[in-house]
Amino acid sequence: PGKLKAKVTSTAKSIKKLGQDDPRRLTHSLKVGLALTLVSLLYYARPIYDGFGVSGMWAVLTVVVVFEFTVGGTLSKSLNRGFATFLAGALGLGADYFASLFGKNGEPIVLGILVFLLAAAATFSRFFPRIKARYDYGVLIFILTFSLVAVSGYRVNELVVLAHQRLSTIIMGGATCMLISIFVCPVWAGEDLHKAIASNLEKLATYLEGFGGVYFQSSESDGMGTGKSFPQGYKSILNSKSSEESLANFARWEPGHGRFRLRHPWKHYLKIGALARQCAYQIEAINGCIGSDHIQGSEEFKGKIEGSCTRMSAECGKTLKALARSMKTMTDPYSSANTHVENSKAAMKDLKLALKAASLENADLAAILPAATVGSILVEIVKCVEKISEAVH
Amino acid sequence: PGKLKAKVTSTAKSIKKLGQDDPRRLTHSLKVGLALTLVSLLYYARPIYDGFGVSGMWAVLTVVVVFEFTVGGTLSKSLNRGFATFLAGALGLGADYFASLFGKNGEPIVLGILVFLLAAAATFSRFFPRIKARYDYGVLIFILTFSLVAVSGYRVNELVVLAHQRLSTIIMGGATCMLISIFVCPVWAGEDLHKAIASNLEKLATYLEGFGGVYFQSSESDGMGTGKSFPQGYKSILNSKSSEESLANFARWEPGHGRFRLRHPWKHYLKIGALARQCAYQIEAINGCIGSDHIQGSEEFKGKIEGSCTRMSAECGKTLKALARSMKTMTDPYSSANTHVENSKAAMKDLKLALKAASLENADLAAILPAATVGSILVEIVKCVEKISEAVH
Repeated sequence: PGKLKAKVTSTAKSIKKLGQDDPRRLTHSLKVGLALTLVSLLYYARPIYDGFGVSGMWAVLTVVVVFEFTVGGTLSKSLNRGFATFLAGALGLGADYFASLFGKNGEPIVLGILVFLLAAAATFSRFFPRIKARYDYGVLIFILTFSLVAVSGYRVNELVVLAHQRLSTIIMGGATCMLISIFVCPVWAGEDLHKAIASNLEKLATYLEGFGGVYFQSSESDGMGTGKSFPQGYKSILNSKSSEESLANFARWEPGHGRFRLRHPWKHYLKIGALARQCAYQIEAINGCIGSDHIQGSEEFKGKIEGSCTRMSAECGKTLKALARSMKTMTDPYSSANTHVENSKAAMKDLKLALKAASLENADLAAILPAATVGSILVEIVKCVEKISEAVH
Repeated sequence: PGKLKAKVTSTAKSIKKLGQDDPRRLTHSLKVGLALTLVSLLYYARPIYDGFGVSGMWAVLTVVVVFEFTVGGTLSKSLNRGFATFLAGALGLGADYFASLFGKNGEPIVLGILVFLLAAAATFSRFFPRIKARYDYGVLIFILTFSLVAVSGYRVNELVVLAHQRLSTIIMGGATCMLISIFVCPVWAGEDLHKAIASNLEKLATYLEGFGGVYFQSSESDGMGTGKSFPQGYKSILNSKSSEESLANFARWEPGHGRFRLRHPWKHYLKIGALARQCAYQIEAINGCIGSDHIQGSEEFKGKIEGSCTRMSAECGKTLKALARSMKTMTDPYSSANTHVENSKAAMKDLKLALKAASLENADLAAILPAATVGSILVEIVKCVEKISEAVH
């Protein structure tokens, strides 16, 4: 029982943590519960929408399948489902009518061929990256509805009634989801994307602002720069591509909200995100150099470039902070960020001068190399940050 | 009409390209068509499985939703769907019985509360990374089936018949999918993962083997090392994490096939994949250094480290090639890969000696820096490749 108790406690803790990390998860769960209960009770109290009969089931089904975490996800799935059902229903009716022309024996064969061709073609279309990104779910529902309607075995006039019922229940379910997701504590994919990009810039900034101090100080005192004391937040940026892309895809479906217009340039965020990733790769390389055991660098040389390197990374950090802040307030970052970019460029020139002036007669190159490499990568980071600054601007 | 024709031609071309890039896409589409036609015709010829009535629809639905590109994906969805339906059906029956104890007025209220609580709890559970990775679809179907059964409004004894029908049609649809995906040109997620990791190692190898030649030659002849002539294949590795993880997740569901046992250590592939990504980050950093405009390096110094750097990267490339080859043939790479690792380490020592010996009185440090940085990152790559070699071994 002690073991069981420990397990229960740890599960409870991880549930609590999950909720605390992002309280919107809890809200989302309650929203799904609400939508489902509403639609279910309508279905239960069937007399209310008399005539819908068993089709009411489709409203429940729609809610469960369509309700996503973000508004954009819900809208994309609802609209995909609605349009695909309509289109496939109409085509299915046509196929039924067409097949009936071939008589009682020919009908199943013709229907089989039609279903095979359409299913194969539609499945293949899902491999197109553009369709996959935006209409994947729609194509799925298209195949589903088409086969159901085509092989239902009902007569065409019965089918029209059925299709009408089904479509209206799906619209009802979809509308419930859309309304609840938009009006009850909405989670906008666009806003999430916006915040994610800004917070990525901040993570880079945190690393860069702290970098100079930690790297140059730690090695002076104890000769250790194992990289363990650096903030590791930037690591999450390395693999952020897919989540950013899916958020941008969802954001396209969202209506204007808050500070975002309907046709906000979401693609532009992906560009900034890619640059931020580029910068994170460089930081990863620096971290590799610092963490490796071949560091027995010349302290003298390190001291010579300390000033300019620290200033370079600090100014880069400040630039990114300013950019993140201006993204958050949606103001033009030009003035403040630009000053820091100029400062970091000036520091870059200082570094070059320091390198030129460094007398190398006493030190051997192998001892200088680690610190020099760090400086060299910092130069790349400065360039990268400049590009980010241009992109945000 | 000319414009239309051009559009049709370009679409046809992209369809052809999509098929040629991976012919299995075509096979997959035909397989889905086949499965759907089979199940649809069974549904159409209802008398064959008499008594199933409208429930046959669920077989069609299952095929459309469950058939995935890889065997693992199909199995995971089929099994998730089957078990979730069974479990939720049983719970739904229980809920119905429990609610009926509260009389005609209390029943809908109790049912509504139950649906709300279960839907909210199940939706929340989907945020757990472990559940999300493996049972996401099962939880979805669980919510769906539970609400459908609970609020169906049928009596319990009617429901048992209905649930039995529905479950058997779902099993029929799921079984059709599983059989076709396993026995007709199967696409194994595990094999795909295996190949993807091996080809990632090869891409790194191609870059590293060619690196020395291109970098040191091009800059000697025309002073340009813009990085454009380097193979860019490694870039796809930078963002490979999510696809590798989903393949590994699917692979866990697959039975033993070909050269893979049932409990093949798929997680180990993720480790090798992560190391390969680490190596790709370093290459990206090198590429950044080379591509940037501040290269006006000292040719003299470059000539001094050329030999050891070229050998380092070439030996790393050979190690990775050997590892990839041995992964493909599933033999122990120890002997051949290890020789190359040792060679690259020896070259690393040569580089250190060359650096020590380099007389620096004439050259200034700023001119040496680019080439020195490349050498320094190559040292990191050697270490990374060594780790990969250990992991593969």
